[in-house]
Amino acid sequence: MKTKKVAVVGASGYSGEELVGLLLHHPHAELAAVTSRQNAGQTLAQVFPKFAGHPKSRSLRFVEPKAGVLARQADVVFLALPHGVAAEYAAPLLESGCAVIDLSADFRLKSAGIYREFYGHDHPAPDLLKKSVYGLPEIYRDEIKKSLLIASPGCYPTGILLPVIPLLRSGLINSTGIIADSLSGVSGAGRKTEADYLFVECNESARPYAVPKHRHLSEIEEQLSFAARTPVTVQFTPHLIPMSRGILTTLYLAPERRFSSAVGMNALNEKIEACYANAYGDEPFIRLLDGKNLPDTKNVAGANVLEIAWRLDPRTGRLIVMSAEDNLVKGAGGQAVQSLNILCGWPETAGLV
Amino acid sequence: MKTKKVAVVGASGYSGEELVGLLLHHPHAELAAVTSRQNAGQTLAQVFPKFAGHPKSRSLRFVEPKAGVLARQADVVFLALPHGVAAEYAAPLLESGCAVIDLSADFRLKSAGIYREFYGHDHPAPDLLKKSVYGLPEIYRDEIKKSLLIASPGCYPTGILLPVIPLLRSGLINSTGIIADSLSGVSGAGRKTEADYLFVECNESARPYAVPKHRHLSEIEEQLSFAARTPVTVQFTPHLIPMSRGILTTLYLAPERRFSSAVGMNALNEKIEACYANAYGDEPFIRLLDGKNLPDTKNVAGANVLEIAWRLDPRTGRLIVMSAEDNLVKGAGGQAVQSLNILCGWPETAGLV
Amino acid sequence: MKTKKVAVVGASGYSGEELVGLLLHHPHAELAAVTSRQNAGQTLAQVFPKFAGHPKSRSLRFVEPKAGVLARQADVVFLALPHGVAAEYAAPLLESGCAVIDLSADFRLKSAGIYREFYGHDHPAPDLLKKSVYGLPEIYRDEIKKSLLIASPGCYPTGILLPVIPLLRSGLINSTGIIADSLSGVSGAGRKTEADYLFVECNESARPYAVPKHRHLSEIEEQLSFAARTPVTVQFTPHLIPMSRGILTTLYLAPERRFSSAVGMNALNEKIEACYANAYGDEPFIRLLDGKNLPDTKNVAGANVLEIAWRLDPRTGRLIVMSAEDNLVKGAGGQAVQSLNILCGWPETAGLV
Amino acid sequence: MKTKKVAVVGASGYSGEELVGLLLHHPHAELAAVTSRQNAGQTLAQVFPKFAGHPKSRSLRFVEPKAGVLARQADVVFLALPHGVAAEYAAPLLESGCAVIDLSADFRLKSAGIYREFYGHDHPAPDLLKKSVYGLPEIYRDEIKKSLLIASPGCYPTGILLPVIPLLRSGLINSTGIIADSLSGVSGAGRKTEADYLFVECNESARPYAVPKHRHLSEIEEQLSFAARTPVTVQFTPHLIPMSRGILTTLYLAPERRFSSAVGMNALNEKIEACYANAYGDEPFIRLLDGKNLPDTKNVAGANVLEIAWRLDPRTGRLIVMSAEDNLVKGAGGQAVQSLNILCGWPETAGLV
Repeated sequence: MKTKKVAVVGASGYSGEELVGLLLHHPHAELAAVTSRQNAGQTLAQVFPKFAGHPKSRSLRFVEPKAGVLARQADVVFLALPHGVAAEYAAPLLESGCAVIDLSADFRLKSAGIYREFYGHDHPAPDLLKKSVYGLPEIYRDEIKKSLLIASPGCYPTGILLPVIPLLRSGLINSTGIIADSLSGVSGAGRKTEADYLFVECNESARPYAVPKHRHLSEIEEQLSFAARTPVTVQFTPHLIPMSRGILTTLYLAPERRFSSAVGMNALNEKIEACYANAYGDEPFIRLLDGKNLPDTKNVAGANVLEIAWRLDPRTGRLIVMSAEDNLVKGAGGQAVQSLNILCGWPETAGLV
Repeated sequence: MKTKKVAVVGASGYSGEELVGLLLHHPHAELAAVTSRQNAGQTLAQVFPKFAGHPKSRSLRFVEPKAGVLARQADVVFLALPHGVAAEYAAPLLESGCAVIDLSADFRLKSAGIYREFYGHDHPAPDLLKKSVYGLPEIYRDEIKKSLLIASPGCYPTGILLPVIPLLRSGLINSTGIIADSLSGVSGAGRKTEADYLFVECNESARPYAVPKHRHLSEIEEQLSFAARTPVTVQFTPHLIPMSRGILTTLYLAPERRFSSAVGMNALNEKIEACYANAYGDEPFIRLLDGKNLPDTKNVAGANVLEIAWRLDPRTGRLIVMSAEDNLVKGAGGQAVQSLNILCGWPETAGLV
Repeated sequence: MKTKKVAVVGASGYSGEELVGLLLHHPHAELAAVTSRQNAGQTLAQVFPKFAGHPKSRSLRFVEPKAGVLARQADVVFLALPHGVAAEYAAPLLESGCAVIDLSADFRLKSAGIYREFYGHDHPAPDLLKKSVYGLPEIYRDEIKKSLLIASPGCYPTGILLPVIPLLRSGLINSTGIIADSLSGVSGAGRKTEADYLFVECNESARPYAVPKHRHLSEIEEQLSFAARTPVTVQFTPHLIPMSRGILTTLYLAPERRFSSAVGMNALNEKIEACYANAYGDEPFIRLLDGKNLPDTKNVAGANVLEIAWRLDPRTGRLIVMSAEDNLVKGAGGQAVQSLNILCGWPETAGLV
Repeated sequence: MKTKKVAVVGASGYSGEELVGLLLHHPHAELAAVTSRQNAGQTLAQVFPKFAGHPKSRSLRFVEPKAGVLARQADVVFLALPHGVAAEYAAPLLESGCAVIDLSADFRLKSAGIYREFYGHDHPAPDLLKKSVYGLPEIYRDEIKKSLLIASPGCYPTGILLPVIPLLRSGLINSTGIIADSLSGVSGAGRKTEADYLFVECNESARPYAVPKHRHLSEIEEQLSFAARTPVTVQFTPHLIPMSRGILTTLYLAPERRFSSAVGMNALNEKIEACYANAYGDEPFIRLLDGKNLPDTKNVAGANVLEIAWRLDPRTGRLIVMSAEDNLVKGAGGQAVQSLNILCGWPETAGLV
């Protein structure tokens, strides 16, 4: 299989670091460049001792991010930058013929209007929104194959969209009244040196934040609206809890048809099971839990996997769906590599198991 | 003020240990006996070095729990026992003239039928259910004063009932569709030596459990039904997260009246503010957060306090109420001491600040 | 007992916050002012919601630190500032007649030369070094009573000096070859927004730092030299471990006399026991562990207590002494209040149990 | 390369689980059997959901451990059992022609007398002690190639022996007075359901244990004695700290020759650097840190790597060496797979990067 050269822009954040780790061991990708303003000049091994065992870690040095230079060095460029900054690099890179896999929020929305509403300013490159594909491989695999601008989804959206989209598409649940309650490890905030993310502030602390309108709602709602073919509004509450990695999401959903008996509940259970089996039965990175198992972030730590389980509640008539993922892998770097594999025609699991 | 003698049965569990710590420093209570089958014969200081600074810790020894002996030693007996076991002690203690403050689930329900449904067997002493009072001081202060059997609420119910009851009583929210999503520290499971609660199993782990029918739902629903004067069914999802203490609860509620404009939202916000101010403005142990503050378990650690904040979501029309408590204090030992203070006619904050 | 007015300069750091919490509930001290550049204008309750239950938290506002103003407001001023900064405030405050209890390293040394060696610049107020007393109450109680400038010890020094000084004074151990290996919770680094102290960088991380010459060595060695009446050099290795509070220290010491038999070991054990009993048997804040108990940071969390245990090793001839403390209490704020109590003639345990 | 069939006895403990994870993805080993009394009959995927992505996890079921059956199923059997139990399986397996890689302490000592002293009973199979090789690949690579009974070292010994042996062999340090101070994550205690290892007991807790004579001292001293060609006694203090994985060890050593000047110190530094470069410069699993870097357990988590750094202290004349490892990988399962690779003639890094 033909090797491709790849670069990571913004390689010193947590998502960038995860990407670098995956790409160093990828069988078909060759990590050709890593950028970081703050670490420019240092080798990978100096900045991240944990990569020191890899021969490339001692030769590859961080450089200042320059689109022109990157375009000559790499076939595919990953952007692991804050939102708003990624857009500055995407346009020149695309013009130079690079493929771009963007881990920021810059190209995830189709609607520039929703972008403005949630991000508080006009989109810097609205034309590119039409060209980008939402990089959720289980949903947009075919589009990813053909796109040169892949907008890799956010960590919260991944854990919400993958469980909900098949249910909406199959008409098993109502598109109104969806509630998503998520618990995130602290790496979700990025490597920001703010007091809120100090060890002492996070340890023994469970707290909601960004209530009731977190920015990720924009892509969650846009994608669910596509799946439901009708506008969908979601109640979403993120919480920060004392762990490094992982997102656990509990979804409160209303089945389209009420079940008033044990027979009805069993029938609905079978439909849900069939719906998920049909959507994800062959997916290498979705783990449908059976028996008594419920999702647990520690069981997906370091893995490009989303765990899903569900329960019908005969007392309330609701469907409770729970998911767990590693926010830095299936919620960021791993998912981006999954898109890379699809884009390059490699086995989708290459470098991810 | 007249001192009372108190005893703690089951003093080696986490709730019992917390109670002992509070009672050792209580200005009016004298800790006369502590029981523990497993530690019988040892002094308090031997079992809990952290109490070693208190003079009583070197003289007071754990004894086997015997109702007859306890009744002679103490005026008030706290039962910090597993559910089902507490009932065995309550009856003889009450007959001997002791007051009983029970931290188990044995006397929290009024309905023996609901007890059977949720606990899987007949209630061992159904007659006592009529005599017991639900020990939530902010709601049942007057009844606690006059009762000799106080059933101290569970940790999850405390964090759900206190925020919801005033809203239901005032008719501000609908009694249907209530959802409570709670995150608990591991001490909520008690000092059980089960693999699920080992450090390595809990660290970096966020997981739901007991979905969709946790036993605490029985008392939550019974109390909310009293407040709403109509049967209430609740969706409740508890999660275990990697911290020692604390419960964070996020409540999804439907305002009785829809708000379709900013004006309507402001008006409703004022009504909710007035409702909470009226219910809890003078309560020493309820902290109504203002400004941008949201509840955080680390801000209530070790304190007999429940933090409450709320947000209206104009996009969904929902009211989100969030609460934080220390499950071992306001959710267990502290609340029990609060009831003791009321029962004995002492200042309600005695030994709790 | 006559109340004194006190102020805390630098009240928004971890040590300052701990001090404020202790002083709010102190029976004889009245917290008259708190300063913080960054929080000036805000109330205590706004900055620290956990203090919101105290009536003063809603009236007392953070102000800019100005020595002149503070001198009029307070009888005793606590300085919880970075080293180097505290000295600027001490001189004018002392001249205005205030007593100063300084939690920084600025006045802990007697030797300006050692200060220069360890801190890299000349001492800003060398004359004050003669007037200051090292605020370790168990060692300098009489001097604290009479001093207006108390230099409260560092957190590491407290856990090393209290176990070692009595052994050196009694000649039971050799003054050479002392090794101190310490493990600190992350609050020891202060509320610094540096990447090293982010949750994700500290969680699952155990790491030494400042090897082999940590600045606290200067006060450790100076105090041990006083106790031994001969210059003492110490090997000290601090480690950062994933917890919020607490320091655990393991000391490797050489008994003055070798023990070559079980009889000799027993005799030495008795001498050490007598030495500690004599030094600390009546101390309210030193907990000498007996039986099989070893120090554990969780048993001193939130308490103004130092736990000490020791073991003789017949295989190596060494004496292993272990101590545990809460770095923010006995290692900072609690110890400073202990000095306040001594200085003001109040019971030494006032506000500390 | 020829595939070998392997089995893991005691696959439900933490070391066993780690081994299973490594062997499932090993390119040349085929996991043919896993045993666990408690999980017999269940599939790998049922017991460990995190392995569910591997096809074998749904077909391979835990069985009762029976040496006769295992001998027919596997060429190499790993024993991940408590000490004392492993010996029962080793003898019949060896007789049946299997190679045995034992992760327990049963065959690590050469001296049955030392075994009796430290483990309190006679060795169950003293004849096998002569046949076993101590499975520290960097030290005994040639012997491992030829042995059918490999005693994989303990986690603490690995982090102590690898840094110290080259120094002793080269005569750079004195063989007396060695001190090893180690901090271990809780998984080091195994999946034992004892109160000491509950989340609440370990969180915010740093504590020494087994002072002064931990059982691992026996193999540490025996191996160091071989390296020094003279009996070596070690001071070893293990501590439990609140993390899941990792051991950080700080070693206090005395250079053979005193250095009294900067020149002498530089010369000694170069000798140490040469010693380590010579011993480990080509080792794939030893990371010699340079520059300002010090070992950090988070940088070796999940990796079969030992990090080493050192500092000379001109003030005390001591050499401080620090190491970090993942106790479950380089300290257990990874190291055992490293021995498997050597034994089978595969690349030593197979399945380990």
